Amino acid sequence: MSRPQPIKFNIEKKLIKSNGEKALGRVGTIETMHGIINTPAFVTVGTKATVKALTPEMVKDLGADVVLANTYHLYLQPGDPLIKKAGGLQGFMNWHGPTMTDSGGFQVFSLGAAYGKNISKITGDDSITGKNGAMAEAEGRLRKIPLIAEAPEELAPKIATIDEMGVTFKSHIDGSMHYITPRRSIEIQHNIGADIIFAFDECTSPNEPFAYQREALDRTHRWAKQSLEYHHSQKNSEKQALFGIIQGGRFEDLRKESAEIIGAMDFDGYGIGGSFAKEDMSTAVQWVNNLLPEEKPRHLLGIGEPEDLIMAIENGCDLFDCVAPTRNARSGTFYTKNGKINIGNAKFVEDLTPIDDSCKCYTCKNYSRAYMSHLFKSKEMLAGTLGSIHNLYFIIHMVKDLRQSILDGNFYEISSAFLEKYKAGNK
Amino acid sequence: MSRPQPIKFNIEKKLIKSNGEKALGRVGTIETMHGIINTPAFVTVGTKATVKALTPEMVKDLGADVVLANTYHLYLQPGDPLIKKAGGLQGFMNWHGPTMTDSGGFQVFSLGAAYGKNISKITGDDSITGKNGAMAEAEGRLRKIPLIAEAPEELAPKIATIDEMGVTFKSHIDGSMHYITPRRSIEIQHNIGADIIFAFDECTSPNEPFAYQREALDRTHRWAKQSLEYHHSQKNSEKQALFGIIQGGRFEDLRKESAEIIGAMDFDGYGIGGSFAKEDMSTAVQWVNNLLPEEKPRHLLGIGEPEDLIMAIENGCDLFDCVAPTRNARSGTFYTKNGKINIGNAKFVEDLTPIDDSCKCYTCKNYSRAYMSHLFKSKEMLAGTLGSIHNLYFIIHMVKDLRQSILDGNFYEISSAFLEKYKAGNK
Repeated sequence: MSRPQPIKFNIEKKLIKSNGEKALGRVGTIETMHGIINTPAFVTVGTKATVKALTPEMVKDLGADVVLANTYHLYLQPGDPLIKKAGGLQGFMNWHGPTMTDSGGFQVFSLGAAYGKNISKITGDDSITGKNGAMAEAEGRLRKIPLIAEAPEELAPKIATIDEMGVTFKSHIDGSMHYITPRRSIEIQHNIGADIIFAFDECTSPNEPFAYQREALDRTHRWAKQSLEYHHSQKNSEKQALFGIIQGGRFEDLRKESAEIIGAMDFDGYGIGGSFAKEDMSTAVQWVNNLLPEEKPRHLLGIGEPEDLIMAIENGCDLFDCVAPTRNARSGTFYTKNGKINIGNAKFVEDLTPIDDSCKCYTCKNYSRAYMSHLFKSKEMLAGTLGSIHNLYFIIHMVKDLRQSILDGNFYEISSAFLEKYKAGNK
Repeated sequence: MSRPQPIKFNIEKKLIKSNGEKALGRVGTIETMHGIINTPAFVTVGTKATVKALTPEMVKDLGADVVLANTYHLYLQPGDPLIKKAGGLQGFMNWHGPTMTDSGGFQVFSLGAAYGKNISKITGDDSITGKNGAMAEAEGRLRKIPLIAEAPEELAPKIATIDEMGVTFKSHIDGSMHYITPRRSIEIQHNIGADIIFAFDECTSPNEPFAYQREALDRTHRWAKQSLEYHHSQKNSEKQALFGIIQGGRFEDLRKESAEIIGAMDFDGYGIGGSFAKEDMSTAVQWVNNLLPEEKPRHLLGIGEPEDLIMAIENGCDLFDCVAPTRNARSGTFYTKNGKINIGNAKFVEDLTPIDDSCKCYTCKNYSRAYMSHLFKSKEMLAGTLGSIHNLYFIIHMVKDLRQSILDGNFYEISSAFLEKYKAGNK
């Protein structure tokens, strides 16, 4: 007897190369309990159960199909039992469309790590992988630090401690200690109640050597199995879909092995994780997507710059999430068809044209670069709101346009024309 | 030949006391070029051409009729010529309803003053009135400081310098020196282009002695005449209304004299200015409103707490503005019918009821105290947005309800019942 399917993925059309061969890319839909995600789709990030500076109505109006919240953050604050009591993530944050939560693996290593100082020995394991939280998002760099019971200040292990069963980490909020196992991550994600959730994994850096990647990958695969088994033992698996995560760093054999092992497990979809060097990303995505089952959706985790989205769509990714559009917006960096602009530049002070004169977002229809410049100079909160609306609209609609171009059979023309203008402007 | 009227004030009904006597309060409408203000009306403050944390659509949706921006702030950043080029305040900030600008007098003294250090002698005038900007909004306290060419650090005149013609002050943004005269203030306000503008005045503290109030009031009256004469010499007077400002501190004879002198000038309406001790406000408003022409609107400047609004409405004020609702919101203090609450209180962490269960605002309809508590703890920008929506809705609709109660003939019952609950909750 097959189990009930919490989501349904339909492929509508596949991307065809100019030489007539099938490419990896495809257009589809993911039906969830709370609505349809038209893929490929940019997934809007709402880390702490809020898309920063926007109401859910704004997020919907700018065209977002789905919001991704963060398990690590919500577990620590306000806590998943409260979210469950509030009717789950959707009820708590007043977003009534599809939702996702990542497993918290990345943040456990990066943020749990950032806070810790002078943590003494917690587990019997003598290998510790630490991540400098401050650098993590910029570099995705993992460091190995020898375990020292009384760490000298300069070696203070800014760490999360891994053992076979899970990860011990220190809260970046209050310094309290926490232990997350694959099962615990799924329990938390069941409480939060998103439509799509992720297995708990170890997110390594591309700079880790093969031996460590090998060890971490085996653990990630064991954890994937534990996540899946626990999930399927629970009623929640009837309404929440679980995605497994492919890791393996920059090593072809590990990435392929991971795609085969995770791809063979009965997940509802797949995430491709790990930090990539920009030039490796396309190759690594191809290794993986050539092996993953075609009939299930694939999420490239943490990717969101225009050129990366084009690569990901061409190579068969259906979902991608990234904080870049909203983070850039809050620092005054806006996407335009002619590349990025920074509104702090003096030339915009008296510029009464919109951020992008071809953009149809609320911000571009109603406000000038001069007004945006004024709001940023005045440190007004509306700056972040209007900027986030523009950047999210730009990225979401860029993906929607590429989706349409696959349906129309002109993906390569549309994406090349976009990139030519966009890259020329960024020079 | 009478001059064209930029606004039209209609009184619909007057407040009647329980003993049958007429009170000062009244219900009316102000017709402007950009829409109608139903009075009494709370005027939403948008100091720097933005109501903090809200889009203009949100401001409109929560029931605001009119937005007040700040001449001093906009003159310094982004500058009034740019706003004129952008189609005036309405076009620049995308608010299409009625607008006002204050004259900048208050801010010239408080903020221009806050920045200055080691300002050497600027004018030949040997009397300087300085205001400690940091304390100004809290206390409205003015200090007199002897003019010293090379001021020692501890006497560093945190000052604006008044002469007969105007005020010299230092920008709180970049330290640049500026000189504002009554005519200059009107020119700036013509560029900004609001529907209702204010004459340039000297805003004194209630703590100033009689002699200084006398001197400052005479100057304010001369400046009022200059403001009015310049305004009427310009085409803009056909579409922008000019309000004169009553001053006089806490002295009955000065307040009455000011009401008579300013009230006799051909202003389109009147502002009541100056900082009041809370217990004096009602008395001072009565002195003034008993003498001002009945057929013109009156704006009580800088007032916005619920109990003060009831007093002001009862005593014949038609307009009032205050930053309190939005400022309180950003610090987590919310109005409820049972008094103010601070969302930082631990008891709200798991409280799944709305801020005020009888409130019909967007925030109360869609979010819980627990969610608001989470947003504040997480320092999320949406906290300020949702909080401001609630507080502004609360205050604006409180005034709307009181307006309706005058029409219905039960103002005293409604306002007493409100105050009883509200004050009990605040204890």
